[in-house]
Amino acid sequence: MSEAVICPNILDLPGSRIRVVTRASADIPNMIKLWFGEGDEPTPVFVREGAKAALDRGETFYAANRGIAPLLQAISDYLKRGYDAEIGSDRIVVTASGMNAIMITIQCLIEPGDSAVIIGPLWPNGRSAVRAMGGEPRDVYLQPQEDGRWKLDMQQLFDACDETTKLIMINSPGNPTGWVATEEELKQILDFCRERGIWILSDEVYGRIVYSGAKHAPSYYTLAGPEDPVVIVNSFSKSWSMTGWRLGWIVAPPRLCTAVEKMTEFNISHPTTFVQWGGVSALNEGDDYIDGLVERYKRAADMVYQALAPLPRVTLGRPEGAFYAFFALDGLTDSVELCKEIAREAQVGLAPGVAFGPAGEGRIRLCYAASLPKLSQALERLVPLLK
Amino acid sequence: MSEAVICPNILDLPGSRIRVVTRASADIPNMIKLWFGEGDEPTPVFVREGAKAALDRGETFYAANRGIAPLLQAISDYLKRGYDAEIGSDRIVVTASGMNAIMITIQCLIEPGDSAVIIGPLWPNGRSAVRAMGGEPRDVYLQPQEDGRWKLDMQQLFDACDETTKLIMINSPGNPTGWVATEEELKQILDFCRERGIWILSDEVYGRIVYSGAKHAPSYYTLAGPEDPVVIVNSFSKSWSMTGWRLGWIVAPPRLCTAVEKMTEFNISHPTTFVQWGGVSALNEGDDYIDGLVERYKRAADMVYQALAPLPRVTLGRPEGAFYAFFALDGLTDSVELCKEIAREAQVGLAPGVAFGPAGEGRIRLCYAASLPKLSQALERLVPLLK
Repeated sequence: MSEAVICPNILDLPGSRIRVVTRASADIPNMIKLWFGEGDEPTPVFVREGAKAALDRGETFYAANRGIAPLLQAISDYLKRGYDAEIGSDRIVVTASGMNAIMITIQCLIEPGDSAVIIGPLWPNGRSAVRAMGGEPRDVYLQPQEDGRWKLDMQQLFDACDETTKLIMINSPGNPTGWVATEEELKQILDFCRERGIWILSDEVYGRIVYSGAKHAPSYYTLAGPEDPVVIVNSFSKSWSMTGWRLGWIVAPPRLCTAVEKMTEFNISHPTTFVQWGGVSALNEGDDYIDGLVERYKRAADMVYQALAPLPRVTLGRPEGAFYAFFALDGLTDSVELCKEIAREAQVGLAPGVAFGPAGEGRIRLCYAASLPKLSQALERLVPLLK
Repeated sequence: MSEAVICPNILDLPGSRIRVVTRASADIPNMIKLWFGEGDEPTPVFVREGAKAALDRGETFYAANRGIAPLLQAISDYLKRGYDAEIGSDRIVVTASGMNAIMITIQCLIEPGDSAVIIGPLWPNGRSAVRAMGGEPRDVYLQPQEDGRWKLDMQQLFDACDETTKLIMINSPGNPTGWVATEEELKQILDFCRERGIWILSDEVYGRIVYSGAKHAPSYYTLAGPEDPVVIVNSFSKSWSMTGWRLGWIVAPPRLCTAVEKMTEFNISHPTTFVQWGGVSALNEGDDYIDGLVERYKRAADMVYQALAPLPRVTLGRPEGAFYAFFALDGLTDSVELCKEIAREAQVGLAPGVAFGPAGEGRIRLCYAASLPKLSQALERLVPLLK
């Protein structure tokens, strides 16, 4: 008898360090959960009604790998309206979440022996997808500044790339840092990647959630041409409060879209048909919803900043985008243990900084997408423990 | 300037040969489409209502990677009721379709240098998933018998395995062949795989669709123990008419479930939350629905057999399971061209045999899951062209 084996590189992949905390805290009553990247209000009714109407119409059959035509059109219209970008459906593929978009893109671009340079600290799943495909992730960390903000060392980024590098992964606005890349920075990276034949995987799922008053963060939707080596990943999760729906899209050059479309067939065939109709409602009827959401997140960001930044042990920059406070705490060396303790003592669920890479240790991530009264209550419970 | 590259093994993957026919026939009016593996009736109302109620309750948040607890319980109950199998939730992971289950399983089991032995002719996507992960698929073809049925040469199967072989892929009842493995055959394969440390990936999505009067086809649900190297793939698509929902599950040893759960996080995080509630309704309220469906498919199988088997050019065995007639046609050498011609001349959409591997050339696949009046009309149009 021999034991059938599981691939060692899959067994070696680290599980989520956030889940370590949530599992340890599963039985604590009255928890206010700010550990995942989502709020506490369900998807808006007009989106749910869009999916329900599709169910009533019998939209329950197989659909095209690339996505249903009305959704491709709605994405194209949304990018024209929101970004003034002309992007036809030959450059769009609908995916079953931003994560699914990242995994399928990496399947198309990374094979064993390839490396991917990742700008961190970052939500760790893209890194794991690279490792699962046998690639080597290389971390380049944003540098924390004295005011708590983050800065990219461009030379360090470029120096991390060599002839094995197939991909640079960038997430702006960033999870967990809230870092927002400038247009100039995005252009410099694009010039470098054009020259070197390296793909940019630009995760722009928080692209609409910025506090500068701009309609969106600087974006490759406006900076990259149709044939540039850029894959923009988007998701319905954050801007339309649709985390549980698992729906997203990519924008990429047509030749890569053709490969992603093919690989979609071999991964999931297509995202759920009537879920895609919910996406049509979100895009076509959701502009005001996003405006309201960003307004609320801005107030939430202020509330968190005002509560935490003055604490002597805390270092926190004013968030520029996304919906996380990723604060450093003097003397913190085991963020998982502290998050477990905070859950026990204060019934507030937070994510340990080490979940976002070794450079995140000594920090805690708080997601402020919850409704304001709940957030306020969480801060009241939390502040005494951070003093 | 350098061009950023896409992985050659992904570019080399063949696209679907069925889609070649469907794309060429897109503008033909009044087509009766029997080319995909689905019927023409939407998902039953009680399942759609289950998902709609979940939407109304606000089940739109992130969920556990492994699937929501009520669905894990419903799967366990269903397997007890339908198969008399005791399978706890430590051996179940919910997936976003059977395809997604196959892809994630292959991610866990196949790396470059590994081979997978595939019993064909077979729906080609599992083969493509093996290739996408850098593995080598090896085909072992069922032998067509004089009566049109299929037979597995067990020695040929075992001889195809060597020390690189990590996996045997089996699909019984089979798409496109309708072949149903006997319990004795499944046991022989299991004994071999236990001895050699080879995984069995048993695609049982048609497991309930058999015409012998038995409640289910011979199945590893009843034959494999909790620690046996067996992964059973199932799907809601076929038995509950939920193709567009993208929902399925695996049953596997706990150690593999842990790996699949982890990789689910890096592929899709989890299947759509309220879609899973539709799955709960399907399982808990759907037993009568399945019985009625199988009864109808049995009549459809008879109708197709009686119409096509007597034709001099046609060789077709009486289908034992699944819902396809995979008939040989004397003198046929280009099934793609013939399917295009049939679409043009008779407005009936069929799948070319070569889509299921080289051993499928000379054949055509007809899916008889459509409602009986539509199927009858399709046969009336089709028979004159096959004479």
